[in-house]
Amino acid sequence: MDPYNPVPNPLLVVISGPSGVGKDATLNRMKEMGYPFSFVVTTTDRPPRPNEINGVDYFFVSTAEFERMIQDGELLEYAVVYGQYKGVSKAQVRRALDSGQDVVMRLDVQGAATIRRLAPEAVLIFLSCESEEELTARLRARRTESEEALRARLALARQEMERLPEFDYIVINRTDRLDETVETIGAIITAEKCRVRQREIAL
Amino acid sequence: MDPYNPVPNPLLVVISGPSGVGKDATLNRMKEMGYPFSFVVTTTDRPPRPNEINGVDYFFVSTAEFERMIQDGELLEYAVVYGQYKGVSKAQVRRALDSGQDVVMRLDVQGAATIRRLAPEAVLIFLSCESEEELTARLRARRTESEEALRARLALARQEMERLPEFDYIVINRTDRLDETVETIGAIITAEKCRVRQREIAL
Repeated sequence: MDPYNPVPNPLLVVISGPSGVGKDATLNRMKEMGYPFSFVVTTTDRPPRPNEINGVDYFFVSTAEFERMIQDGELLEYAVVYGQYKGVSKAQVRRALDSGQDVVMRLDVQGAATIRRLAPEAVLIFLSCESEEELTARLRARRTESEEALRARLALARQEMERLPEFDYIVINRTDRLDETVETIGAIITAEKCRVRQREIAL
Repeated sequence: MDPYNPVPNPLLVVISGPSGVGKDATLNRMKEMGYPFSFVVTTTDRPPRPNEINGVDYFFVSTAEFERMIQDGELLEYAVVYGQYKGVSKAQVRRALDSGQDVVMRLDVQGAATIRRLAPEAVLIFLSCESEEELTARLRARRTESEEALRARLALARQEMERLPEFDYIVINRTDRLDETVETIGAIITAEKCRVRQREIAL
């Protein structure tokens, strides 16, 4: 590394954490603020929620198409979450990294663990919130799920919280302080860019 | 670590780099900006420069007193730089860390290497500048040294630049962009506070 002109490698940043902590809201705010990252769009076979746009929030594909992508090894990681597929296209990530762009993706805890195995040098950020009560309140406020689905999410969240040691960083996404969350993530990325021992992503 | 309330350990942050890169200016700006750190004051037996204040810029002591401190093991690190002693009081750092405060100190490259041995979990930041030409210009602008002393400093700076791999982070202190330098250091400290595997400083 040239001490007068250190050139950082592009980063692969994973924003993860249990559902309800605010992964989507965090990434959306990062996009709004014009952060110069390449944001990965997750592919899923679940039906879009109201207001979700294909190619922006997710790539919505049929179950058959998703299974073809698995077969053809086109996915960097995929998982079945609540009976639905979610995955990340390998080509999309490779293209961005090759062009020197930092890549940011949102993944559930299971998916983040897969990325850790495939790309040990990825930056894994665990998003959390102030308390389990707050997490419950946020999930309840969504009103998109039955009580049964909510209980299942909470049970899963408890298990996922225990996987924190697999991550590099933890950021508490406090209620009504989304900008602070985004700034903290920005600081983590700035710091990673200054590391003397740069991370090397090989996919 | 509690995923709802992660409590970071206090950090020991060392700002280092060859003379001329702007270590003093950077630390002074950090103090001005009210960063909530405990700033270590270096002890030296060199005579004060104009405008330097005892207990603020340095603790100025006699050579005999400095040697007594070495004998009594009162220094965390010390070095002879250009024929003059510089050192850091162990008690000062311990007191701050014990009270939960982050400690920031400015050290030359030799001193930073000593801290790395004594406290491997210290955060070592290497301050640099845009080019060797710029470094020469900054040293020359000081006008406090003879041409011979200047040449000696430049020769030392070249050797010190090669020790970059011993550091955790590199920050380029660009001319007239001191605020950017300080913000980057702030980002590094923020990121370190979010690490899941916290650094444990034992002195």
